[in-house]
Amino acid sequence: MLEHKVDIRVRYAETDLMGIVHHAHYWVWCEVARIALMDFMGYPYARLEAEGFFLPVVELQAKYRASAHFDDLLVVWATIREMPRSRIEISYRIERQGQRLFDGSSRHAFVQKGGGACRPPTAWLQALMPYIK
Amino acid sequence: MLEHKVDIRVRYAETDLMGIVHHAHYWVWCEVARIALMDFMGYPYARLEAEGFFLPVVELQAKYRASAHFDDLLVVWATIREMPRSRIEISYRIERQGQRLFDGSSRHAFVQKGGGACRPPTAWLQALMPYIK
Amino acid sequence: MLEHKVDIRVRYAETDLMGIVHHAHYWVWCEVARIALMDFMGYPYARLEAEGFFLPVVELQAKYRASAHFDDLLVVWATIREMPRSRIEISYRIERQGQRLFDGSSRHAFVQKGGGACRPPTAWLQALMPYIK
Amino acid sequence: MLEHKVDIRVRYAETDLMGIVHHAHYWVWCEVARIALMDFMGYPYARLEAEGFFLPVVELQAKYRASAHFDDLLVVWATIREMPRSRIEISYRIERQGQRLFDGSSRHAFVQKGGGACRPPTAWLQALMPYIK
Repeated sequence: MLEHKVDIRVRYAETDLMGIVHHAHYWVWCEVARIALMDFMGYPYARLEAEGFFLPVVELQAKYRASAHFDDLLVVWATIREMPRSRIEISYRIERQGQRLFDGSSRHAFVQKGGGACRPPTAWLQALMPYIK
Repeated sequence: MLEHKVDIRVRYAETDLMGIVHHAHYWVWCEVARIALMDFMGYPYARLEAEGFFLPVVELQAKYRASAHFDDLLVVWATIREMPRSRIEISYRIERQGQRLFDGSSRHAFVQKGGGACRPPTAWLQALMPYIK
Repeated sequence: MLEHKVDIRVRYAETDLMGIVHHAHYWVWCEVARIALMDFMGYPYARLEAEGFFLPVVELQAKYRASAHFDDLLVVWATIREMPRSRIEISYRIERQGQRLFDGSSRHAFVQKGGGACRPPTAWLQALMPYIK
Repeated sequence: MLEHKVDIRVRYAETDLMGIVHHAHYWVWCEVARIALMDFMGYPYARLEAEGFFLPVVELQAKYRASAHFDDLLVVWATIREMPRSRIEISYRIERQGQRLFDGSSRHAFVQKGGGACRPPTAWLQALMPYIK
């Protein structure tokens, strides 16, 4: 299991009229955690793009358990549990002082610039492998 | 079944470095369609809020089938299929010239200002009822 | 003078905790109006990009005169008053039922993909010229 | 002079099709720096709001000198140079490894919840005063 976390302080611009964080912004935080996860794994996402690969989102799901508010200090965890075949699944949980606010997951395709879906690059799989049992 | 659609032209600010629309923005469009759906049903969301109710998102899921691009003209459908009990489910589909780009759904709690979860207001249920069967 | 307007309905996601539209979103609307202005002039911004040009923002200024709220129906005007030399200036005003909410302007450089600042393409200047005096 | 800085790592969602950060997002970072400045001054913005005051933006201006990119590590400075009368001016500069990317400023009104413009609260002025010569 590859797991990593980032600290997020809720920005004013992320709130809405309801007085809480707008639900769309949680996906931006998950993305921040996903990118930090790849840094941690030693294969930054920016390197993947430089090599001509993209990881577009193909599926999302989430449960919003409690609201986040302006200025909250959150912990956003990203986790990869299995070696990807053509698609990679990443799960997320967001906590505030131990309280669970959000559980979610995203699935991503590997896509080559100007092309279609492809298999993950071998070097990327090798960087991930040591973490997945 | 209550169903309604809105036309959305993709904004430049909704794209990202990948050259396509960032996945978080689809939820903003779904929200636009959801609000238009309630206008169409004769009970605008703004009225709900004025009466002290909110509809926070408690669950989301989506499949992203094809990418949207800058300046695309999209049709975003929102649909309510069943009478809500405590929670309401709304489904979405996004199309570009007949091509399906996105299928998703959201579940929302009814919440009273300064309080907790509640049942939907009776007048709101009455406005919805004629459309469901 | 080249002038054009777009209608904007304020989205829920554009509001913040203060109960009004977050100030950053006005620039997204100005961008929508700027792009519609170029469509109207017969030289869509997407064509500029397809030809290898970008128009990054180099300067902004604005006065926010009154707040916009969720579900407001706004009119956003974009205006070009002078032929650009190396940079182009576009001004904006945003109104709600005749009330002025916002006055602003942006200046943009013409930049060539992978290169630096450049002069506007001749065909673009020719498309603009009939409107400027 | 009251001055404070925050570190910002550029998020993927803040980029656009042009491959650089969308200009509207700089204002979100300025807001993050402005809020950290008030924390540093010992009078958090959240306290102001809890006391019934808001600080809506009434004026903005900025020069964008160089582009920010995905994953850049930026330093965003916020500075207050003068005691506010009815309005407060805050200036910003954004740097990447010593290179200046952005200079800007915002002016804000003090507004009372449900009311109009007002003078800044005395305790807030007293918290600021020691820094302004």
